[in-house]
This record gives sequence, structure tokens and C-alpha cells, in this order.
Amino acid sequence: MEFTGVYHKTSEQMSYPLDEDRLIVNIKTGYDVKQVFIHYGDPYEAGILGGKEKWIGKREEIIYKKRLPYQIWWTTTLFPEYKRCKYYFELRTEEEVWYYFEDGFLTEEQLQMDGRMQQCFIVPWMNPADINRTPAWVNDTIWYQIFPDRFCNGTPEKNGNDITPWRNHGTVTNQEKFGGNLEGIRQRLQYLQELGITGIYLNPIMEAESNHKYDTTDYTKIDPAFGNEEMMKALCREAHEKGIRIMVDAVFNHCGRKFAPWVDVLENGKDSRYADWFMIEDWEQIGKRADTRDKRFYSFAFADTMPKLNTNNEEVIEYFCKVCEEWIQKFDIDGIRFDVGNEVSHRFLKRMREHLKAIKPDIYLLGEIWHDASQWLQGDEYDSVMNYPLLSGIHDFFLDKTMKKEGFEYMVNRCYTMYMQQNNDVLFNLLDSHDTERLMNRFHNLDKFYQQLAILFTLPGSPCIYYGTEIAMEGAHDPDCRRCMPWSEIESKENQEKIAMMRKLIMLRRNEKMCRSPHFHFPDTYKNDRCVEYIKLDEEGNKIEVLLNASEEEIKVKGNGKILFARKFDGEILGVNGTLIRRI
Amino acid sequence: MEFTGVYHKTSEQMSYPLDEDRLIVNIKTGYDVKQVFIHYGDPYEAGILGGKEKWIGKREEIIYKKRLPYQIWWTTTLFPEYKRCKYYFELRTEEEVWYYFEDGFLTEEQLQMDGRMQQCFIVPWMNPADINRTPAWVNDTIWYQIFPDRFCNGTPEKNGNDITPWRNHGTVTNQEKFGGNLEGIRQRLQYLQELGITGIYLNPIMEAESNHKYDTTDYTKIDPAFGNEEMMKALCREAHEKGIRIMVDAVFNHCGRKFAPWVDVLENGKDSRYADWFMIEDWEQIGKRADTRDKRFYSFAFADTMPKLNTNNEEVIEYFCKVCEEWIQKFDIDGIRFDVGNEVSHRFLKRMREHLKAIKPDIYLLGEIWHDASQWLQGDEYDSVMNYPLLSGIHDFFLDKTMKKEGFEYMVNRCYTMYMQQNNDVLFNLLDSHDTERLMNRFHNLDKFYQQLAILFTLPGSPCIYYGTEIAMEGAHDPDCRRCMPWSEIESKENQEKIAMMRKLIMLRRNEKMCRSPHFHFPDTYKNDRCVEYIKLDEEGNKIEVLLNASEEEIKVKGNGKILFARKFDGEILGVNGTLIRRI
Repeated sequence: MEFTGVYHKTSEQMSYPLDEDRLIVNIKTGYDVKQVFIHYGDPYEAGILGGKEKWIGKREEIIYKKRLPYQIWWTTTLFPEYKRCKYYFELRTEEEVWYYFEDGFLTEEQLQMDGRMQQCFIVPWMNPADINRTPAWVNDTIWYQIFPDRFCNGTPEKNGNDITPWRNHGTVTNQEKFGGNLEGIRQRLQYLQELGITGIYLNPIMEAESNHKYDTTDYTKIDPAFGNEEMMKALCREAHEKGIRIMVDAVFNHCGRKFAPWVDVLENGKDSRYADWFMIEDWEQIGKRADTRDKRFYSFAFADTMPKLNTNNEEVIEYFCKVCEEWIQKFDIDGIRFDVGNEVSHRFLKRMREHLKAIKPDIYLLGEIWHDASQWLQGDEYDSVMNYPLLSGIHDFFLDKTMKKEGFEYMVNRCYTMYMQQNNDVLFNLLDSHDTERLMNRFHNLDKFYQQLAILFTLPGSPCIYYGTEIAMEGAHDPDCRRCMPWSEIESKENQEKIAMMRKLIMLRRNEKMCRSPHFHFPDTYKNDRCVEYIKLDEEGNKIEVLLNASEEEIKVKGNGKILFARKFDGEILGVNGTLIRRI
Repeated sequence: MEFTGVYHKTSEQMSYPLDEDRLIVNIKTGYDVKQVFIHYGDPYEAGILGGKEKWIGKREEIIYKKRLPYQIWWTTTLFPEYKRCKYYFELRTEEEVWYYFEDGFLTEEQLQMDGRMQQCFIVPWMNPADINRTPAWVNDTIWYQIFPDRFCNGTPEKNGNDITPWRNHGTVTNQEKFGGNLEGIRQRLQYLQELGITGIYLNPIMEAESNHKYDTTDYTKIDPAFGNEEMMKALCREAHEKGIRIMVDAVFNHCGRKFAPWVDVLENGKDSRYADWFMIEDWEQIGKRADTRDKRFYSFAFADTMPKLNTNNEEVIEYFCKVCEEWIQKFDIDGIRFDVGNEVSHRFLKRMREHLKAIKPDIYLLGEIWHDASQWLQGDEYDSVMNYPLLSGIHDFFLDKTMKKEGFEYMVNRCYTMYMQQNNDVLFNLLDSHDTERLMNRFHNLDKFYQQLAILFTLPGSPCIYYGTEIAMEGAHDPDCRRCMPWSEIESKENQEKIAMMRKLIMLRRNEKMCRSPHFHFPDTYKNDRCVEYIKLDEEGNKIEVLLNASEEEIKVKGNGKILFARKFDGEILGVNGTLIRRI
């Protein structure tokens, strides 16, 4: 047997309670393993641990599996009668049988050896307080990300001298301000509702110097350029009336240069009562204007305009808990996205979660984390993270023609075997954002653009489109991905066609439960090695089929089904870069 | 390359800050990998994530390694300049080079492909509040576990009718009480000091019905059979004066039948104000006397005398935090061992740690966990656990003659690659306890007995001997492992020889820093495949060599060195079951 291929542990996403009754157990093995059995039962079935007991579990085959590049991921659900579970695995290749325990592999002979210790896997108790729980509404939500300065200026008549006239086409800079504001968003709520959107993710709106507002001056005050408290209340109220939730952006990893405690530190140095709110190494030099590679203080990246907040400090933790509490009380927001969500302390996040869930139990806590975020998704910090690994995986598959359809399958399976199902259900899936080039820019090809969106709208989690995606807006890396939304051209035939296409995908996701479900598999119906093909199922066994032609050749489609979404499909042939989604 | 053999992640013991400056990075590969390089640097070196940056790390070879049964464990220490680190690995077999990223393996060509995403491993920030810190004194401690009823009766003149006369030989039952007490322990402190002991782990001493006291009646009152508050204060004070620390046993997973809240629940049922302090499913039946397999309420194992406490309940959490606080304030105890430490909620333990470390920062929090306890050793719950995996591994090696010396090496390496170094340094290493048969009973062979103790005293962590081990006491599984300590025979020649032998091992551990250090490796000097051989080193490079003949043949010893401990060694030949420890 390929021993290195076998992996299990009793923590993180390998073994966890889905709720108070169900225990999910996953195990990886090499492809040489043909059958896996789990022997499980109550740890105390035969007496107390350490005594002379001879414990024997109940034997059950594990049948569900996913393919990873070099391993099979086997998955099963147990119902431990007394909330605790002890188990080991029986692995069968074509020739061999091995028993897999926490300390390694035993032969049948060793398993039977009198007096040998059996270090079984143990799930000691499924304590309710430790169960990872995420808000149920998120899986049903279609998000729309808005960069406020560039989405819609609702009060152009009030533009001051600092406002650049709206620019329907062409690039923008990070110095320009276009006057987009909350009133503008409010005015477009109906547009968003008609598009099918059910959640808005707002980039920061609290007072800050820059146009992107990631350098907060005052966490308790709406930026005057965007509006005021009343405007924000109205926006949230009206959005809620239209069935649209609101998520705001929280920048707690660092602040701006004008944040009062930082100003105080600049003035009073070590004697400031905020001295420990930051991470300062050289008190003499903090006033200097230059990047922070000299380590005089720590900052976001090396930007001296964004001094790092010390989220290890109890006072800082309390301060920001209160800030969020106020946001919830005042605006009744539904979610908070934590900027640079991996650099703040775990302690900070644990406190924050406890504080906020006590106030609003179904608030959605989303971390900006670009890499494997298992550590933050154990049930006591974030509910979810921005799914950049999926974004990267999808992008790489379309870019890298050496990848076969199996590569796509492995990538998707990797993304959905990384976290617990509770988190997978509410993952924040995206294809671009204010931090990346726009989806349309990656390949400058509308067919590939919709192929990738078709994936986004049929995978588990909750999809988010970046404003302007409904008209396939262009934009290279920051700052170009933050162009103005061309409202005066929105009625053009071309734009309306794209909007209709987007709405179709959105309504598909909303109407077909299978799109949102966690269940999928990859059949192997087509020979073409870049014909991506997967089935999504709901709990009742209803199915949709997703077919994407990522090859250079046409594909003759097999089988029948009700067409739900199609591009470059003539009823028989799926053209190059074509997309077909059918209910089957 | 053997892809399944490769494993890394940025959490748990694979990648963690050892302190505010040092980042430990470990990676597993198959044996086909001959060289591993890490490419690392600051994540923002080339700009902000998601932009057009082309990040390139610094390349460094990883040279330290440990052997696991099917994999090599490579380990290195990085010093991230700005507290953050981004990295990927370069793996070289004899023919191939692969680049290992979070999402898999890239070829050189893919690595260079324009626009391809590189999902590096990221350690976002080494936040001080999240660093796993354990008490420094524990690594220097030699523990002695005392089961109070059976260790020493210091006041035999006060024996009541319920006390059975002390029994120097033969078995005991769990119904008998022998009158061992705190005064008895106090009287033996000098004995323990002379033995070299620097820590006492006391089984429960709070009021309870049974002799073992794991069914607590009152968490705030010393059991009258053992003494009173003044006696406990005196014991702790005098122990401290002799350089001996005190660890008590905390039974918070369940209580006894006479615990006031449980009595209240029995009386008032659902209306009891303690109704939610327990886990009750059938209120009608709770008074019934029979095991709890009917699930009328949850209990420890299925014992109806030990109803399970609901450690998910905030009131219960607070109550027990206060109990421990009081123990610390009153007795100045140095450690707390949490009974059934894996079944209480993580939430409970996180609160408990926070509460207690604020009162006494270097208190030692030890969990009774028999299996891989990584989940509990992330720095915010326990400092350490009882190292039963090591106990089992040592036992199995001596029992199972099919295991070769490599099997021993793999087992030890498994045990010390399971947790972070901070935890390894303070692991509670033991070979037996009140919950297992006694070490002497496993093989009824004094030579093997000392071989195993020699291992215990030379591995990282902190060793504990169970009372009576110094005279090689016999005892089968519970209750037989809880026999009376035969004080009236302690002066016999045979006992004094054994005590001298034990003291030799203890003083070896105390005097030779190499015994306590985390550094070891396994040379391969001898052909004999059950000749266990390892070297321990301190930071200065001083070395001891440990040699154990676990085979059926004599071994001709090579090299020279100062003999620190030896059995069945005539200066040249190490006999069957012989032990040799030398400074080399």
C-alpha cells in the first residue's frame, strides 16, 4: 500500500461535528486503496480507557469520495449515540489489508496481538459551544461589490472642486475622486434588485483621506464625501426592504495618518496614552515620511500612511468591538468584511466574534484572506473568507493549457476539502475585486468570461460580482480596476444584452437549489481532455449538468435536459469556449 | 517524485512562531526527496498582493531532518524581518525538481508562466498575543504522582472504623480506604527531596465519596479523610521550601452524586436553577440507579455516579474559573491537571486559561488526553498533556519483537513532531499511572523496567514517576495499580538498591542538560536491529549517548565515554535488556 498517501486527523476539516448530531469524518488515501471501512463506536463501550478492555467497533464502508491529484478523499457521516466517537480505519488495496490508527498502520496480526496498545482516533465530545456555526442566509445570497467613489454619484449637483467629472471610459488614478456616494447607491437599489442581487458588499465608507478609504481617519463617522449617518441608515433600511443585505468593510489591521490616536502618538511620542495601540520601534523617527522598511514602526505593507494597529492590545480589541457594535446598532448591517483579515491577532478575532454574535447572532463575519484559511475557520473567528484560492484556480485553468479537465476537478476538490462544510456553504466566491485586475481583462474574451461566471454561479458558497461585471467592464490592476460605472450608457443594446445574460445566471442560481448545494461530482463522459463537466445535486437528487468547452475543438453534446444557460451551443455542438447548463 | 509524501501547511506544528522572532517551518516529504530548499521573504517585498508584482524569495537549504516511517520531516528556523513570511519549497529528487506551493506542485515551466497565480504559503503576522507560551520551569521538573489514599497515612493513631489497616503486600479494592493523607505526604517530603523529586502531582484531594475522589462532592473543601485547608497550605508551603512544586487534579468534566447542584437537580428537576449545569435528556428518570446507557443524562463513561457537567454553560465556566482561582490564592499551587481533559468544551478551557494565567502567569495547565492533542495545544488551552502516545509507543516496542530499532526511532519522532516545540519542552511524560497497569507489571522484568525509565529520563518534556516506581512496585490494572506504599519495608536492602538506581536516573536528568534538551538524533552504529541508540545534545553541542539492548543477543559496545548510567554492561558487552548512558 502507498502509506504516504494515507492521512487523517481528528481536527480541522478532517473530522468535525456538522451539528449536534452529525460527525463528518474524512480520510485521504492513495489511489491504490480500493475500499475503506471505518470501525467506530463509543469509547467507553468496553470500559474505561487504560484498563483491560477489548474495544471493538462497528464496521461500515465509506463510499463517497472525491479525487485529488494524487489521493482519494473519502467522506462519511456518523451519528455518535453519546456525542463521542472512537474509530480506526480498514484500508483495502487489491492485495493488502491494513488497519490505520493514530500512530500508524497495523497488520491483522499486530491488531490481534495481546496487550498491544491501540491508539484509535478519538472525538471526545461534540460540545455545542464548540460547534462551527455559520449564518444560514449567506448560501442564498448573491453579492454585488461596490467601490463607492466609482459606482454612482447620486448628487452631482453638489460636486465640489475636488470632484473629477464622471468618466464613462478609460483609466482612472488613485488620486482622482469622482463623487460616487451612498445616495448614488440608494438610487440604484432598484436596479440591483432587478438584476437579482440580494447582498451588497461595500468597500470602506468611514472617514478617510484617500478615495479607497482604507486609511481610516474616524471609525465612527461616515466619510462626508459619501454621505452621513442618516444616509447610511436610509440605504440599509431601503436595501432591507428590497431583500438586499448590507456588508461593510472594516479596516482594523491599520489606520490612516489622521486617526486621532495616531495623531496623539505623533505629538506625544512614548508618553501618548495610545503608545501601545501601535507597533513602534523607533520613537525618534516616527514622523518621517517614507516607506517603513526601516522598521521605525510597522505598517500595512510598507505604507507609512497606514500604521499598523496593535490588535494584541486589550484596549484596541475593546475599542474595535465597540465600533462594530455601534455599526450594528445604528445601521443594522448584516455582515462585516475584515480587511487584511489574516494579519490581525487571533485573540482580537475571537473576542470580536464573541462580542458581535451576542448582539446579532446571524451576522456574517468575512475575512480577507488569500490563502488557506483553516486556522481562521474553526468556528470561533470568521464565518468565511474571500475565496481567492478558487479564483486563482479557475484563472490558472483557463490560462494554462497544459492543465487537463482532471486538473480542474482536482482544483475544485481541493478548494472544497480545505474547510468544514459549514464554511464551504458560505464561502465568499469571487472572480475579481478592487484588488485584482477585472475578470474581463484576464482573457479579453466574452465567452471565457461567461464560462468562468457559470462556474462561480454553480459552485457551493455564495457568489459575488464586482460592480460593472454585469456589463463586462474592463480594467487592469489597481487603480484601473476601479473605473467609473457608465450609467449614461447603461441602456445601450450591448449593455442590456450583457445585463440580461448576467440576470439569467443570477436567477439560475436563485431558482435552482442544486446550484447552491454542497454536492457535486465530475463524470467522465467526454474524451476531450479540456471539456469540463460536472453535476450538481440537491438533497432530493435533482440534478444540473455544467459543461464548459475549454478546448480548441468543438464538442458534440450527449444526452438531453432542459437548457438553463447556454453560449455557443446550437442544440448539438458546444463551440470552443462554449457554456451549457442543463437540468437533467 | 512521490507527491503524496509531501505535506506542509501554515498552521499547528508545521509552521509556527517559537517566540516573537523565530518562525519554525517543517515539511514532510517522501524518502525520494534528497534536498529541500525554501524560498522565502516578506510578502510585500514586491508590492501589494493581487497586483502585478513578481515576488521572488531568498533561497535557503533546509538541512535538519527526522525520519518517519514513510517520510522525512525537514525542519528549519526563519527570522522574518517584519514579522511576516511568504514562502514556497523547492524539492529535489535525484532526477526531478518540483516547486511546492499551497495549491500543489509546479514545474519550472509553470513557475515561469506569465500571469500564473502563485499560491505561496503565508504566515501573515507573528502576533505576540497568539504565540504559544509554556512555563519554563516545567522542563526542569521531575514529577512524582501520588494517589493520596495509598501513599502514606501520617496520622494512623486517628484511624476510624472505616479505615483498613495498611497493606504492604497484595491487592487492594476500590472500596477500601487506607487512610493515606496530606499529613502523610508532608512527612515524606524529605524522602522525596532526597530522591531528587521537584514536583508532586496529586490525584484529587477535594471532598468526594470514593477513595479515588474523582466524584467530587465539594470543589472548595479538602476531603476530611485527607486533611483540611491548613494541612494543604502547610504541605504546599513546605514543599516549596524544599524546591518541590505542587500540581493538583481538577475533575471538571463531571461531578459526584453529592455535588450540591446535582442534588438540587435531583430534588427540583427542570425547575432547579442548576438544570442547565448538566446534560439531562429524560427528567423523569434521573433518579434511577443504573448505568446511563439509556441516555437519561450524560455522564463520565456510563457511570451514574459521575454526572457530566455542562462546560458549555457560561455559569459553569465561571464557577470553575473561580474554584481554580481560589486554589491558587489559598494554596499557591503550581499546576492543575484537568481530568478527562478532552471532553470538556474548548470554550471552557480557553476561558480557564485566560483567567488563570492572568492570576499566575507561570501556572502549568495539563490536560489528561490520551491521543493526539494538537487541538488543545495551540497556545490558548493547555500547556501540555499526559504523553500517553509515548507511553504506548515505548510499551509496544518492548512487546512487539517484530518492531526494529527504526520502528522505535519512528515512534519517538512521531511523538516529537506532533506538537510545537514549546509544548514538547513541557510534555508530561509517564510510563504508568493510576489509570494503567504499573510499568513493572508489563514485563515483570527489572532490566526492561529500567530500560524504559532510561528512555523516560532522556527524552524532551518532563518525566513523571508514579509513587512506588522507585521500588519497582507491582500492580495490575485499576484497582491493583493503587496498592499501599510499604513504608515499613522501605529500608530493606533490596528497596534501597532500587531507590539508589532511581535516584541515579533522576540526578542524571537534573545534572545533564542534554537529557532535557529538545535535540536528538539516531545514529546507525550497530548492526543489531533491536539495539536502540540515540544521541541527545544541548545547545552547546555537549552529548550523551543512550544505548538499549532490546534484542536477544549481546552487543559489543563501540567507542568511549563517561558512563552515567549502566545495567548489564561489563565495560565491553551490553547484555540482553542492558542499558548504557554515556557522556560522549
